[in-house]
Amino acid sequence: MDKILRIDMGAEGGPKATVMDLGNYAGLGGRALTSAIISAEVPPLSHALGKENKLVIAPGMLSGTIAANSGRISIGCKSPLTGGIKESNAGGQASQTLAKLGYAAVVIEGKPSADSLYTIFLNKDGVKIQSDDSLKGLGNYDLVDKLQSVYEGKPCYISIGPAGEMMLSAASIACTDMECRPTRHAGRGGTGAVMGSKKVKAIILDDSGVSMRAPKDAEKFKEANKRWVDGLKKHPVTGEGLAAYGTNVLTNVLNEAGGYPTRNFSSGRFEGHTKISGESEAALETERGGNPTHGCHKGCIIRCSGIYNDKDGKYLTKQPEYETVWAHGGNCGIDDLDTIAMLDRLDDDYGLDTIEMGATIGVAMEAGLAKFGDGEAAINLIHQVGKGTDLGRILGSGAAVTGKVFGVERVPVVKGQALPAYDPRAVQGIGVTYATSTMGADHTAGYAVGSNILGIGGKTDPLSPVGQVELSRNLQIATAAVDSTGMCLFIAFAVLDQPETFQALIDMINAFYGLSLTGDDVAALGKSVLENERKFNISAGFSAAHDRLPAFFSNEELEPHNVKFRVTDQELDQVYNW
Amino acid sequence: MDKILRIDMGAEGGPKATVMDLGNYAGLGGRALTSAIISAEVPPLSHALGKENKLVIAPGMLSGTIAANSGRISIGCKSPLTGGIKESNAGGQASQTLAKLGYAAVVIEGKPSADSLYTIFLNKDGVKIQSDDSLKGLGNYDLVDKLQSVYEGKPCYISIGPAGEMMLSAASIACTDMECRPTRHAGRGGTGAVMGSKKVKAIILDDSGVSMRAPKDAEKFKEANKRWVDGLKKHPVTGEGLAAYGTNVLTNVLNEAGGYPTRNFSSGRFEGHTKISGESEAALETERGGNPTHGCHKGCIIRCSGIYNDKDGKYLTKQPEYETVWAHGGNCGIDDLDTIAMLDRLDDDYGLDTIEMGATIGVAMEAGLAKFGDGEAAINLIHQVGKGTDLGRILGSGAAVTGKVFGVERVPVVKGQALPAYDPRAVQGIGVTYATSTMGADHTAGYAVGSNILGIGGKTDPLSPVGQVELSRNLQIATAAVDSTGMCLFIAFAVLDQPETFQALIDMINAFYGLSLTGDDVAALGKSVLENERKFNISAGFSAAHDRLPAFFSNEELEPHNVKFRVTDQELDQVYNW
Repeated sequence: MDKILRIDMGAEGGPKATVMDLGNYAGLGGRALTSAIISAEVPPLSHALGKENKLVIAPGMLSGTIAANSGRISIGCKSPLTGGIKESNAGGQASQTLAKLGYAAVVIEGKPSADSLYTIFLNKDGVKIQSDDSLKGLGNYDLVDKLQSVYEGKPCYISIGPAGEMMLSAASIACTDMECRPTRHAGRGGTGAVMGSKKVKAIILDDSGVSMRAPKDAEKFKEANKRWVDGLKKHPVTGEGLAAYGTNVLTNVLNEAGGYPTRNFSSGRFEGHTKISGESEAALETERGGNPTHGCHKGCIIRCSGIYNDKDGKYLTKQPEYETVWAHGGNCGIDDLDTIAMLDRLDDDYGLDTIEMGATIGVAMEAGLAKFGDGEAAINLIHQVGKGTDLGRILGSGAAVTGKVFGVERVPVVKGQALPAYDPRAVQGIGVTYATSTMGADHTAGYAVGSNILGIGGKTDPLSPVGQVELSRNLQIATAAVDSTGMCLFIAFAVLDQPETFQALIDMINAFYGLSLTGDDVAALGKSVLENERKFNISAGFSAAHDRLPAFFSNEELEPHNVKFRVTDQELDQVYNW
Repeated sequence: MDKILRIDMGAEGGPKATVMDLGNYAGLGGRALTSAIISAEVPPLSHALGKENKLVIAPGMLSGTIAANSGRISIGCKSPLTGGIKESNAGGQASQTLAKLGYAAVVIEGKPSADSLYTIFLNKDGVKIQSDDSLKGLGNYDLVDKLQSVYEGKPCYISIGPAGEMMLSAASIACTDMECRPTRHAGRGGTGAVMGSKKVKAIILDDSGVSMRAPKDAEKFKEANKRWVDGLKKHPVTGEGLAAYGTNVLTNVLNEAGGYPTRNFSSGRFEGHTKISGESEAALETERGGNPTHGCHKGCIIRCSGIYNDKDGKYLTKQPEYETVWAHGGNCGIDDLDTIAMLDRLDDDYGLDTIEMGATIGVAMEAGLAKFGDGEAAINLIHQVGKGTDLGRILGSGAAVTGKVFGVERVPVVKGQALPAYDPRAVQGIGVTYATSTMGADHTAGYAVGSNILGIGGKTDPLSPVGQVELSRNLQIATAAVDSTGMCLFIAFAVLDQPETFQALIDMINAFYGLSLTGDDVAALGKSVLENERKFNISAGFSAAHDRLPAFFSNEELEPHNVKFRVTDQELDQVYNW
């Protein structure tokens, strides 16, 4: 991981690859690296689909090593959805593979003038870029099937579906999992549209003949990783909860807390919650010969992922995550797991962010395009996106555009990006993160739900504004650092509750790189990432007015607690004061 | 004009009207009044289609008097198109009539919860608000026809078409002209969508039995108005040019200057310009028994308006303005006047801003939805908007949304509002106004074309950045003041060239109100209007980054002069430094 691969898709005579030293970017990985490159090299006021934007794909600092759960890959760009900087990370095999191939980042630049689609193949011998128009319009599943017949061995794939080709703002980038299925997505912010604008349909990563990355101090690294694994295994969430029911264990929890956004954020409880809960989902998966306990990449010991089979016991999709089950479930008034799983499958296949699409369908339902609870209508709406009809293009442009086109007032977005599965009125801490994150509304940017609802790292009252700014600030800083390591964010449950597990993570980094970082250094890294991102966003036109929730969260009470969002604007403006 | 009529459309039991004193708003008119009310009373981050927004309709300070050309009406709100403050003004009969009825402003507030449509009738006896669902979906022409059979005498009408009912961001508000045709529009910024959100379909203004407003010093006022009329008559533009060919006299002028934006701003000259020029238009109108010389309201002596008949000599539409002929003509590669006139008619009937729609169709053509030059396709696209199809809703949401939905990079908007008929690369002064105006791209906010191209008020080199910031600043200040008087902006040609005509205007205001204002006071008024507007916009989320042209104007050279926009960001940031 001592080099950057730059590919100029707009070079004269066709795409041109150049391998470069890390230079100023040395020592960075994951989000720290993508955000550093974007903020240094992309003009903040350039068009997100233009030649000046760049798509940066970067494994984390510990990816490609034996460190457990180090398989997140960061994908950065100027977002076509928000207009600001974007880092969206995904699981699957891509991060480990790219890291083992030695690339700290692949930077896709420029824009071809012709209309051809390209594949990029990376292995130990270098890079090969080919045009292949036979791939046009393929969904991610068919695409990967087709490429698997071409590429020998077991490469992994980073790809876009039709939504990305159409450059829709809700388009995701898919990464294949251990079974080579395109189920792990860098979903948020329209990264797929940027890949589509560069005309790159797929990146094929083959690590045959390359080894794991070697630490500077192998013994110390191994020993720290042992403590790390022990820490993850002993925490109830990372050791048991997520394995048993996946992230969807949260449905019942959030519903009980009255913070489960129902029918486009009009209630905090969904009467159909038990039918779509993680408990029901896991039971159904087991019953049908699927699997509720599964890792999305090699080296994962949390195993929150799973396999969802259809009624005939045939693979349909990966186990839909909590956010997906909510977005297409309670948020659309839908209480049928098979419908939700089909929507998940279609989102993955067309290459769409499940959160953005669920929120968008909720807005479309509020506009009267379909009735809340009508699963068939929801499936049809996603098909419209895949087909690229006029309606589909509206929906595929996300909740904000859909709200504008259909004159809807209650549109749950911040900086143009849809809110995830926690109502900020009943979970005020996550409201602070939604409002102020550099990413637009994003639960992963500072998961205050952990403290507000689960009591992780200490309990805060979810209905009170008190302490939420400090909580969100600290989590946003820590998350920016974690997102740079390649670690799955779920390690945070253990790290926040167990100081010795946090120390094990630092010890791993130190042993790997021959450093002597402390906890303060980790916080400093997180702050510097956020500062880079925030600087970009300000130059792109974001001001304090954009660090706000939509007005209806402050004006409408949410049942059952009859609460409004009560963190003041003045308090929100303190999040970045450190 | 010593009272404000407030109508709460969301009041319990149905809309409720209240007449109030002017209070703090005393002495203000037109844009000064609409912007003062919006900036004081509408939360900048509220939803433009929500109950917190207000629609303010205000005649100018001299409207309802004998002062020549004092018939502009200002309509203000938070704009659904830009998200910022909006004042859009229109000709026609409404301003004189409302002023004579004694209202400094009608403020439409709140939002009904039911789905009924309302009419508001104002005459000397007061106000009458009725629900009338038989008006739903009517175009402005049919609507006015229908209402004319209901209301006796010769009232004038302020109304919205289907686009406003659908709350589309490009929806306009129509005001009827002297022939009671809905041809004079407050076009820009989606004012019609706000009227639609309030469920007001039409406002009927009947001035039977009321007199002209009386000046404090009748003699002085009459004498000053005589000098005023003389001044307008003796200037070649206001005395002759506009009467002979209307605003479309500019087509040949701008084409010759290489600043005529052609096919979505991809060239500065249009090969078909002579076929759609003002000279050709006037000749055709005369030949068909129309009329190229006509005032849009009583008391207009410039008479730039006209009547456009179809091939059979039957009324089709008012004489399309230069901006409209450009937007649907050169900008779409269309060189047929009958096609352009039909598009103008449809825009007026559906209630759409001709500039926004022309720019939007240009973007749609760039996206491949139709070919540049295909007039039939353009007509079909506007029909889609009127019908409210999915495609129509995209287009009716304006150029920015259309560009986003179809992944177009070259989208000519500032603050979400489409650029008018002057390419900022070949007319750099208007580029400064487009970039920095509080209104989004708006040629009327500081018409630097006058100096850059026509040499009005002194000549500046249109291709050079030198002096453009100062020029635009001074024009924006002067315009904000003129927009407050009710005066048609075209008086500026005479006022800028003839100091004695400017003095006559000040003398009229002084004689009417018993004041002793100087030119400096007028400038101070203009500055205070802009300051109000800018404060609102900053709170609504606009920053320096929004005072910029789209990147392609700085990156792409425009033929025939092969120029880019060269005013620097640092210079743009000086416009509001006074």
